[in-house]
Amino acid sequence: MMNHAQIGLIGLAVMGENLVMNMESKGFTVAVYNRSPERTEQFVNGRAKGKRIIGCQSVQELADALERPRKIMLMIRAGQAVDDMIEQLTPCLDPGDVIIDGGNSYFKDTMRRAEELEQKGFLYLGTGVSGGEDGALNGPCLMPGGCAQAWELVEPIFTAISAKVDGNVPCCAWIGGNGAGHFVKMIHNGIEYGDMQLICEAYHLMRDGLGMSSAEMHEIFKQWNTTELDSYLMEITRDIMGFQEQNGEVVVEKILDVAGQKGTGKWTCKAALDEGIPLTLISEAVSARCIAAMKTERIEASAAYGKKCRTIREEKGSFVEKIRKALYASKIISYAQGYSLMRAAADDYGWELDYGNIALIWRGGCIIRSVFLEKIKDAYERNPQLLNLILDPYFKEEISFSIDAWRNVVVAAVESGIPLPAMSAALSWFDSYTCESLPANLLQAQRDYFGAHTYERIDRPRGEIFHTNWTGHSGSTSSANYTV
Amino acid sequence: MMNHAQIGLIGLAVMGENLVMNMESKGFTVAVYNRSPERTEQFVNGRAKGKRIIGCQSVQELADALERPRKIMLMIRAGQAVDDMIEQLTPCLDPGDVIIDGGNSYFKDTMRRAEELEQKGFLYLGTGVSGGEDGALNGPCLMPGGCAQAWELVEPIFTAISAKVDGNVPCCAWIGGNGAGHFVKMIHNGIEYGDMQLICEAYHLMRDGLGMSSAEMHEIFKQWNTTELDSYLMEITRDIMGFQEQNGEVVVEKILDVAGQKGTGKWTCKAALDEGIPLTLISEAVSARCIAAMKTERIEASAAYGKKCRTIREEKGSFVEKIRKALYASKIISYAQGYSLMRAAADDYGWELDYGNIALIWRGGCIIRSVFLEKIKDAYERNPQLLNLILDPYFKEEISFSIDAWRNVVVAAVESGIPLPAMSAALSWFDSYTCESLPANLLQAQRDYFGAHTYERIDRPRGEIFHTNWTGHSGSTSSANYTV
Repeated sequence: MMNHAQIGLIGLAVMGENLVMNMESKGFTVAVYNRSPERTEQFVNGRAKGKRIIGCQSVQELADALERPRKIMLMIRAGQAVDDMIEQLTPCLDPGDVIIDGGNSYFKDTMRRAEELEQKGFLYLGTGVSGGEDGALNGPCLMPGGCAQAWELVEPIFTAISAKVDGNVPCCAWIGGNGAGHFVKMIHNGIEYGDMQLICEAYHLMRDGLGMSSAEMHEIFKQWNTTELDSYLMEITRDIMGFQEQNGEVVVEKILDVAGQKGTGKWTCKAALDEGIPLTLISEAVSARCIAAMKTERIEASAAYGKKCRTIREEKGSFVEKIRKALYASKIISYAQGYSLMRAAADDYGWELDYGNIALIWRGGCIIRSVFLEKIKDAYERNPQLLNLILDPYFKEEISFSIDAWRNVVVAAVESGIPLPAMSAALSWFDSYTCESLPANLLQAQRDYFGAHTYERIDRPRGEIFHTNWTGHSGSTSSANYTV
Repeated sequence: MMNHAQIGLIGLAVMGENLVMNMESKGFTVAVYNRSPERTEQFVNGRAKGKRIIGCQSVQELADALERPRKIMLMIRAGQAVDDMIEQLTPCLDPGDVIIDGGNSYFKDTMRRAEELEQKGFLYLGTGVSGGEDGALNGPCLMPGGCAQAWELVEPIFTAISAKVDGNVPCCAWIGGNGAGHFVKMIHNGIEYGDMQLICEAYHLMRDGLGMSSAEMHEIFKQWNTTELDSYLMEITRDIMGFQEQNGEVVVEKILDVAGQKGTGKWTCKAALDEGIPLTLISEAVSARCIAAMKTERIEASAAYGKKCRTIREEKGSFVEKIRKALYASKIISYAQGYSLMRAAADDYGWELDYGNIALIWRGGCIIRSVFLEKIKDAYERNPQLLNLILDPYFKEEISFSIDAWRNVVVAAVESGIPLPAMSAALSWFDSYTCESLPANLLQAQRDYFGAHTYERIDRPRGEIFHTNWTGHSGSTSSANYTV
């Protein structure tokens, strides 16, 4: 077999298959391999028939089919499977060959793998791929990070297959050093959790608070999609609300309210805990999925408390607009938190992230694509050192314009018993972040009282620490003075 | 030197020193060692002078000073220091000797160490120790887990030094197998974060919403400490509010609102993420400390938004009582979440936790000690299989009695701009947990739309999965059908 394929792809699940079709449609010849050969056969004789797609029965065959230096993309389950495949693959490769992990790998795994592979002379690219099956086929958002030399080798292919915005701007850009690509993809996924939860809360308010039908909400989401909320998720929500089976059944009304998740939201929350960055909205979105999964417990608890949510007694039209504003303001907070986390991690791991550019490439291809991201790009172009998104003049104005409606919605929901975990967490964060004097002085007093943890004073320079002998009977030495 | 000391203790920081004094006061002879010998000298010639406390200049000397099988307790910084000390210590020990880690070790580290040490014939006890410096001296709460045989050997000492409730019930009990002691201690610390944050939020409401003075709040906390909220943290808050320097300065008012943390709250949140248990109140408490730490940003954001919180226009006396009820209800939610997490972890790690007994031993010695814990003990005695604390009849009644006030307080805070991250997260959780139909049907539709993640239906049995071809143009195969 001639070694003329420009890229190899391993893993023919829905994402892998569609990426291959996408690459081929841009003129690239792709060699493919899947662990179960039937899948490869099925693909090659099905969708891939008559196309520049070469089915391989072994990784050796795949390696032989590729031009040098080889470029091999893994689209397989994150975790051990990636390590196993790398181990299987590397004996068939030569130094200078490029391995691209396009799965949802944990960024620390990517960092470890890149180090191991680079020691052996291979080039490694941890690449976030977003857009679901549709994006994979028609243009995903690609977030490569790792070895800059490898990026140069795959750039033409990635640029060609990626989504485009504003005519011809590719949704694909070099993110940064080792781990940065998968980290930024993880943040993307966390933000996706937040965006979805916010839309669900708006839906909950309209469905149970205002008693609106799916058809009515279809119209609302359609209208919202022409505003600042114009986005892919709003678009599919509109479609979902309007989607009927042939028998007239509205599918969304028949779906069980038990949420699933695949773990990247959880990772984002853990990263936030590690960096000491409050990521409260996304955390609540992850928790909301966990609570949604507890269907049996919820039925029992609902019966025990005889819980029924009360109708929201406000004029429907104007309250729907308030919900829209609450959703918009909360969304700003979610992105503000996510961008803070990227900033902290970039400092920690030595990545030079271009925040404006990240917003730009998210504008197309990926699940969170939206018009809104353009505004974030603008904000970071105005000030690349922006401390927090809500300090940008544009977003300050938007929040200020929405704040009363946002408070109003949270109040109505609290009174009616409709949970708005994400919208209210966003508001708590906003009220905390814009609060000059929090009650943490008491917290520090408590910690000093029982643990001699010391405190700083408002009338003394930062860094100068104090301890009070609160009880009169414990030692006057603080815990900070002790080390073993 | 005679080998007559009953127990050895390594690490003479504030906790270690006080534990030694406590042990000695109960009639035990204690051998002590500290990495920096000056510290040992200082202790032995100071507080320990004339007591049955033997200062040792090396771990070998410590080992020689102990009766067999040896019992050695480490009170050193969690992390690498524990591994280093174990490595240094074991060559001086014999099989059958007991090592007790009384530090705030991460429970997975404890599990690893126990396995390694048991292979070498040593017995290992990961033991949670709570109560701060005062508890260490006068009676801590002790949470040992690991090797049951080791527990028998140290039980007399631990029982003697632990706090006592109801006359003579020791706040010390065997928690369970490997890792259980430190896990339960971690949950304790997480709950402590939550309890402290809730008190801070009540303080914030009274200080900035009602404009109350520290002296007034001193009276309020004093009164609250005679109600269901009777607890150590309420007691010290009362004292802190009333604590003045000789010049009349109220110390708490001079403390900077920049919170510190040592990481156990963060671990609790990570464990919750791993177990898929919503621990939203404690997560918000951890985040609140992170936001409190961002003082510079907060000053900037406060100025940018010209943010001032509005006075709460309610009758002070009755609103203070509502705050008390909101605090109480939120506290119930926090414990409900924490106990759910313990339950999930016990299933996961194969621990047989006695939930009632855990509540019992927390009633004394530790930071979260309270009258409230008696009610939790009662609930688990009524039903050891209780699915969630809020389903217990007593707590159901308490929440039902407080719910209106709780909603009222959250509403007032939202309107006035005072952040109540924990109280409002608790309310969101309650409204979600008692909600039979959450909006997660939309979430599942979205996931199925863009990722073919499938869903279940309300009119079909659980476990039966469906996929809709929402767009008409993507494949009809769901992602669940694919594996590499």
